[in-house]
Amino acid sequence: MKTLLLAAGRSRRVKPIEDKNFLKFAGGTLLEHQLDTLKRVGLTDLLIVGGAHNREKLEALGKPYDAKILVQENLDEGMAGAVLAAEAELDADESLLVISSNDVLAQSANADAYLLAYEVKTYFPGGYLKLNGTRITGIVEKPEPGTEPSNLVNIVLHVFKKPVALFEALRAVSTDRDDRYEVALQNLMQKQVFEALPYSGFWQPIKFPWHVLDLMNFSFKVMGSRIHPSAQIAASAVIKGDVVIEEGVKVFEHATIVGPAYIGKNSVVANNALVRESMIGDNSVIGYSTEVARSFIGDDCWFHSNYVGDTVMGNNVSFGAGAVCANLRLDEKEIVSSGQATGRNKLGPILGDNIRVGVQTSLMPGVRVGSNTMITSALLITEDIEAGKFVSGGKPELVIKDNKAVLDKGARAKMKGNL
Amino acid sequence: MKTLLLAAGRSRRVKPIEDKNFLKFAGGTLLEHQLDTLKRVGLTDLLIVGGAHNREKLEALGKPYDAKILVQENLDEGMAGAVLAAEAELDADESLLVISSNDVLAQSANADAYLLAYEVKTYFPGGYLKLNGTRITGIVEKPEPGTEPSNLVNIVLHVFKKPVALFEALRAVSTDRDDRYEVALQNLMQKQVFEALPYSGFWQPIKFPWHVLDLMNFSFKVMGSRIHPSAQIAASAVIKGDVVIEEGVKVFEHATIVGPAYIGKNSVVANNALVRESMIGDNSVIGYSTEVARSFIGDDCWFHSNYVGDTVMGNNVSFGAGAVCANLRLDEKEIVSSGQATGRNKLGPILGDNIRVGVQTSLMPGVRVGSNTMITSALLITEDIEAGKFVSGGKPELVIKDNKAVLDKGARAKMKGNL
Amino acid sequence: MKTLLLAAGRSRRVKPIEDKNFLKFAGGTLLEHQLDTLKRVGLTDLLIVGGAHNREKLEALGKPYDAKILVQENLDEGMAGAVLAAEAELDADESLLVISSNDVLAQSANADAYLLAYEVKTYFPGGYLKLNGTRITGIVEKPEPGTEPSNLVNIVLHVFKKPVALFEALRAVSTDRDDRYEVALQNLMQKQVFEALPYSGFWQPIKFPWHVLDLMNFSFKVMGSRIHPSAQIAASAVIKGDVVIEEGVKVFEHATIVGPAYIGKNSVVANNALVRESMIGDNSVIGYSTEVARSFIGDDCWFHSNYVGDTVMGNNVSFGAGAVCANLRLDEKEIVSSGQATGRNKLGPILGDNIRVGVQTSLMPGVRVGSNTMITSALLITEDIEAGKFVSGGKPELVIKDNKAVLDKGARAKMKGNL
Repeated sequence: MKTLLLAAGRSRRVKPIEDKNFLKFAGGTLLEHQLDTLKRVGLTDLLIVGGAHNREKLEALGKPYDAKILVQENLDEGMAGAVLAAEAELDADESLLVISSNDVLAQSANADAYLLAYEVKTYFPGGYLKLNGTRITGIVEKPEPGTEPSNLVNIVLHVFKKPVALFEALRAVSTDRDDRYEVALQNLMQKQVFEALPYSGFWQPIKFPWHVLDLMNFSFKVMGSRIHPSAQIAASAVIKGDVVIEEGVKVFEHATIVGPAYIGKNSVVANNALVRESMIGDNSVIGYSTEVARSFIGDDCWFHSNYVGDTVMGNNVSFGAGAVCANLRLDEKEIVSSGQATGRNKLGPILGDNIRVGVQTSLMPGVRVGSNTMITSALLITEDIEAGKFVSGGKPELVIKDNKAVLDKGARAKMKGNL
Repeated sequence: MKTLLLAAGRSRRVKPIEDKNFLKFAGGTLLEHQLDTLKRVGLTDLLIVGGAHNREKLEALGKPYDAKILVQENLDEGMAGAVLAAEAELDADESLLVISSNDVLAQSANADAYLLAYEVKTYFPGGYLKLNGTRITGIVEKPEPGTEPSNLVNIVLHVFKKPVALFEALRAVSTDRDDRYEVALQNLMQKQVFEALPYSGFWQPIKFPWHVLDLMNFSFKVMGSRIHPSAQIAASAVIKGDVVIEEGVKVFEHATIVGPAYIGKNSVVANNALVRESMIGDNSVIGYSTEVARSFIGDDCWFHSNYVGDTVMGNNVSFGAGAVCANLRLDEKEIVSSGQATGRNKLGPILGDNIRVGVQTSLMPGVRVGSNTMITSALLITEDIEAGKFVSGGKPELVIKDNKAVLDKGARAKMKGNL
Repeated sequence: MKTLLLAAGRSRRVKPIEDKNFLKFAGGTLLEHQLDTLKRVGLTDLLIVGGAHNREKLEALGKPYDAKILVQENLDEGMAGAVLAAEAELDADESLLVISSNDVLAQSANADAYLLAYEVKTYFPGGYLKLNGTRITGIVEKPEPGTEPSNLVNIVLHVFKKPVALFEALRAVSTDRDDRYEVALQNLMQKQVFEALPYSGFWQPIKFPWHVLDLMNFSFKVMGSRIHPSAQIAASAVIKGDVVIEEGVKVFEHATIVGPAYIGKNSVVANNALVRESMIGDNSVIGYSTEVARSFIGDDCWFHSNYVGDTVMGNNVSFGAGAVCANLRLDEKEIVSSGQATGRNKLGPILGDNIRVGVQTSLMPGVRVGSNTMITSALLITEDIEAGKFVSGGKPELVIKDNKAVLDKGARAKMKGNL
């Protein structure tokens, strides 16, 4: 059996996160974690479908796993196109396991003829299986809550004993359709027997950017705790709970790291900073008097005198002093991000890569800031900012008059007397 | 003798503080402190006049003192109505001590036929006694500074040997008058002999909200110092001076509490926070990197990365990160609050109950924010905000262009090299 | 030989720094450091030319050095007028050493007939020497980069064996000319032999305010390390590297001072503050949660909850909580100050004396704020502010509606549960 890992997708819903496959959790990318899992359960004949945009990174990453990288020419053909890209790689009698790179499972199931189906307890906006006994007769995409045909959600871990029939079914559906893969499955189900493998272990898709935080929290559970011997930790710094501190990290005086937390290679947690329940990538600086709480921070990020709470950001993001990530509505109700309900009442902004935010600027909860964007100082950002923008507030209007106030020279001395 | 404690008043001048009787100083409400004092000097036959608005809370609070709670039907009748509400409770030959719930005395005087009179050293906007020898012949309300008839200010601790005459005098004055009680006294003085009991011990009325800070400072002097055994205090936290830390309090790493200070039950002083010369109520969180200096904070308040100086606030007030209480004018002159000179050059804003303040918002010195109000982020609040309001700055105007800046990848690495 | 120290200048380019001669480096003014250097190399017959504006301060400062203070009547006559002010002090056969008060040399050269000439490696906007062999034939002021006649820049350390000829040459040039001194030198060079004494040791002119930071860094190298026995340093405070702490200084809990750093007399480094690579004058307060990095701070300054990076400021400057000195452009390119390229990509604002900045106000990189100015709260200052101004943003426009949000009482308790 060959395993086909789908890694070509550039989901718009997860924007401004650039490529979720390469998000690093506890030092390894999401894709590496998936490949490790596949290897562990004995799936070693690996195909990864990517696109032109990430081919090189996939080649480098797939090498240690002996994975063959395939390139999907037309990304607009979605999952159907991705699966067809593997056609030439399969012998006539080989089965095919199709698996998504970003449905993260805690351990892989030993299925051989099934669609993996997650038993949801509350509504999830995915594809629900219609069943006739144990046989799957259809998939209903995002039904209205309350009208779900079952409590089983389709997870993209699909095993096809005869993929030739799948390829034929895919080709029989127009490339114009967004849901070509799903329609092909539906058609095939009428002829072949599909069964569901119910699964109730850990499952975390990254459909929306805030799912990164859920996945981070799962990752914490399996991360353990260690401090690299090269790390320099000031005597007055405090490290509590499960914390991983990688090579070359520096933790300065009066800083605190409260686990679970992960600090990537060569990063700095500076004086009086606080990191808790967060992952920090490599080469980042959590500067003086900065709190990072329950957040996912990429490589090469830089903060000082900031509050960063319940926030997801990519690489090379820098904040000026006093810039703040708001993470709670005043009415403490559910936060909506780009029109999408998030199910969270605590969520900061979401930032892509290569972003600069000026001093004293506030980013409101759930706001998304695209990559390669600069936002100037002292602004209130209440709306999404597209990638590649330069955002300012225009010239500040000042009222400048002559200063007629006279200071009492003694006043300050009196105040200082109390110190 | 029966003692009548006046607790019905809802002073407009002390707004937005909701009911000063229930402000807690060092864990006990103002009213409880008053009742303790009365008990200590042997006054045990206690009546408390409240209103419909606080009857329930008074019943609960008065129970351990065997105090009878009376309800004044029409609060518009002021102090006169409050005194008349006690009429039915008095035997014909019983004397009556009338005492205000919020003129706080350090120890109660053993007077029996007097109006207690405070010897003021500087002008206080109260009622001044006119004297003929030791006999009081009149009360002049808030005379112009310099025209005071004496240096004795009327404190509402009035003993009437024959309260029947008082009740008659009260009824003889029209209910339309604001100063009905005072006029009744003036009339009575012409017939009866009123004497002043000069008093120069501690006296602190709560006429204006900032008097809460004065009373807090007095309260510190008698509070002592203790840490409840259930409190969890991090090894690196520092506690100095006279500090009371109640049950269930947590003090996190690198926090400092400089006495005098009081931290109420189950409150948290988080990492790197500083509390000094302040009272914090129960269940409050003084979050990371927050300073609370010389302030009175109620129950269920929450801060992080804030500066709170010389500020008075009620219960359930929450600040977003970076919000600031300004407590000093640029010219360092006296602060005026709602048109009222405060006698202070350091005073923050005054906040009622159930208030939310967004990130990065600044509240100017002496500004009053009414209860049940929400103020959004990044605003400058220079004016009083009424209760029950939602305050925003409208949609921020952003100028969004394409970002043409190109970052030099090496620049940050060079900066980081110095750390 | 008499030595004439030029201290009358009031350079416009160094504004808003008030009088660079009196800037204190490691406790001594620039002028004192210069006088110490002169004394060390045996130059003891000292004249200092000042103006009416600093005569008194010069008299006090020059006394221990037995320096005679001369006053230049018309400061508009520049360096020529300053030199002529010394004419009456010289005997006919005495030589004259003319030296600038703010070209700081690490050690003084033993020259006797030369103009000191600094070997520059990169372009400096000064006067370049034209040479014929070792003879100086002219000085070219600020040539276009690439057209310099040599790599030798004229430093005002000029020795004249026969100053009488100099005085004559000066008088022969019109007082209308800005460059009267330079023209006189040029004329004299045609008759007399001028030679250059090449010098490649430390040289730091204060042409622009940011040169104060360069001089500070040099000063650190020779400052050493000491803590006055009267200083009070909390047990949890950390002091690292070369740090000088003067008499009466207090360092509070969880503060950090990272050398090189200088803390002047009676200054306070308060709780959780961080001072690094900076000089703090006397009687200043680096308040709670404030970072001062790579900055020069005068006497009587006061901060709390501020970020101050790569900033130069005079005396009696106070910041409200949350005010920030931005020190980096978003594009990380060279900072321009008052139209002048600075050669720095990290530079904060430059402030004079007696300045107040309100809470949450941001001062942009390189912005200059004149003395005796007040800037109100929550402003973004992107332009230079002249001396003596009162700057506000006008009345903030608030949108005030009724608050219809209802808070869920349990939400906060749930959040607090995680602490």
